Amino acid sequence: MLDISSHINKQIFLKTSPKDKLNENNFELKASKLEHIDNNQVLIEVMYISIDAANRAWMQGRTYRSQILPGDVMGGYALGKVIDSKSNKFKVDDYVEGDLGWQNYAIRNENELIKTRIKSSENLHMSVLGITGKTAYFGLELANLKAGETVLISAAAGAVGNVAGQIAKIHGCKVIGITSSDDKAKWLIDELGFDGVVNYKNDNFVKDLRKLCPEKVDVYFDNVGGPIFESVLFAMNNFGRIICCGAVSQYDQAAPQNGPRGIPGLIVTKRLSLKGFIVMDFEDKKYEAENKLMEWIDKKQIKPAEDIINGLENTPKALIGLLNGENKGKRMVKIIK
Amino acid sequence: MLDISSHINKQIFLKTSPKDKLNENNFELKASKLEHIDNNQVLIEVMYISIDAANRAWMQGRTYRSQILPGDVMGGYALGKVIDSKSNKFKVDDYVEGDLGWQNYAIRNENELIKTRIKSSENLHMSVLGITGKTAYFGLELANLKAGETVLISAAAGAVGNVAGQIAKIHGCKVIGITSSDDKAKWLIDELGFDGVVNYKNDNFVKDLRKLCPEKVDVYFDNVGGPIFESVLFAMNNFGRIICCGAVSQYDQAAPQNGPRGIPGLIVTKRLSLKGFIVMDFEDKKYEAENKLMEWIDKKQIKPAEDIINGLENTPKALIGLLNGENKGKRMVKIIK
Repeated sequence: MLDISSHINKQIFLKTSPKDKLNENNFELKASKLEHIDNNQVLIEVMYISIDAANRAWMQGRTYRSQILPGDVMGGYALGKVIDSKSNKFKVDDYVEGDLGWQNYAIRNENELIKTRIKSSENLHMSVLGITGKTAYFGLELANLKAGETVLISAAAGAVGNVAGQIAKIHGCKVIGITSSDDKAKWLIDELGFDGVVNYKNDNFVKDLRKLCPEKVDVYFDNVGGPIFESVLFAMNNFGRIICCGAVSQYDQAAPQNGPRGIPGLIVTKRLSLKGFIVMDFEDKKYEAENKLMEWIDKKQIKPAEDIINGLENTPKALIGLLNGENKGKRMVKIIK
Repeated sequence: MLDISSHINKQIFLKTSPKDKLNENNFELKASKLEHIDNNQVLIEVMYISIDAANRAWMQGRTYRSQILPGDVMGGYALGKVIDSKSNKFKVDDYVEGDLGWQNYAIRNENELIKTRIKSSENLHMSVLGITGKTAYFGLELANLKAGETVLISAAAGAVGNVAGQIAKIHGCKVIGITSSDDKAKWLIDELGFDGVVNYKNDNFVKDLRKLCPEKVDVYFDNVGGPIFESVLFAMNNFGRIICCGAVSQYDQAAPQNGPRGIPGLIVTKRLSLKGFIVMDFEDKKYEAENKLMEWIDKKQIKPAEDIINGLENTPKALIGLLNGENKGKRMVKIIK
């Protein structure tokens, strides 16, 4: 058994629930001693913490997981390595992922963890080969892309959006992105091969969108909800498909706002379909997705885009910045030295 | 060739576009002489005019058809009989349907008409065997009903809703309706076999809905949109399906209101799917639907519910009343003596 007496666990707690915009005072860092694990439990050293807009939604109420309340260690999906185990399913040095939280060490029951088969550098398992890459993969699978279709992606420079765009290009689609700065727009076009990108902060957003999508939008991969969702509804083609992946515009505020106008009216007259999904529902197909994504990386058809920040203490700042749209690609915090 | 000199055509025109709630002053009735038909045209005596909430939406702007503007003969789906023809596709005494408008006689090009194979009394072809019955049929086909599921239907006493409820019962589902009066609620339960009905005008609407759907809603057949749609979103089961058939609550007012809160957030977390459709898209399967619906009527598994008003001059009142929710079942105006 591991001697845990020398291990200090730094943990970031939610101190207060944010009333509207999240800020650093909502968190506090405390150090504690490690506890011993019980039967069927595993002690994990956290390596990379995934920073996701959904983290903010978890503070608002119950989603597909319970709400994070003041006094809780902040939740967060992460990749780690087993350093002690009383489980038959996991042994020391296994890589595991799950909601390990914002901390150096996590104790988890074996049924809360998934084994990660590392097939490339570890950080890739937090980006293209991880949950966000797979989210893009399975979301587009629901869309049944056909070559030549116009695919529009919001939060296009984000972790999911940039991979979704690159996958849609592989399928022969025309790919248009929506993002929040001209700098990110340029990056998406020059570096990742998007056919066009609109900056939704420009006054001419709706006009720009129309100009880039003269044949309207066949598939909209929505990561943001809110007013952008509403604008896109009016730009959809008949029989268009909308993949609902997230609603980041709605997370970092006091209460859910009104929904988009045109629902359900435009859904009827344009015969749209909307589908919501969560990547966890596709657990049985995850290796298929990882293999395909790895193949595309190897063939240079997908260029991994990562934004790695160092140090547990910087995790609150990393999330706040992500909610303000400062990241290009998958943001994660590296915990191990 | 028919001698048309003795035929006077009474027509109802849209005089002014309604600003909010439709009223009789928006219409005017005028009499005119019939004109001669050209090649490929057909002269039709209108028999039954279908009264549909969509009629009101057509005045708001372009939908799946062009907007109806002041000075236009009011549009309306109808059943009629050919009384003169210069078309190879239609002969005198053929039954036809299409947008014949609010008038005694209509001249239409052959490609604007569909031949109706009358297989029961004519009025049935405006109700269960007509567009509204087929709308219920194809909408539920999109829902892939499974026996034992809870199916919720809004505007349940309306033309589409009452048939949708009866079809869902045939599939072994638990069927709950939403309607606007206790009288209609009682009628749906006692006469049409609904398992339960909530009156959305009651203060306890949301509580009542929850009580009647203890296992939440698997399929929501939405005819209304608006605040009811929003309330139902919160009552949906994970992986629930919403069939978007219409948005009658949004038609009879000045401008589209805000959309339902929870979109797209709840679509994601509950993994909902929403599908819009228009019955015209299923033209190739219409005889299959008619045969099935006729079979269910013959077996007394569907009880036709009709609300027939006499006289062209009563058509505006019939539509206004329908928008106020006064009909039970399919409302139509009988034009022929």
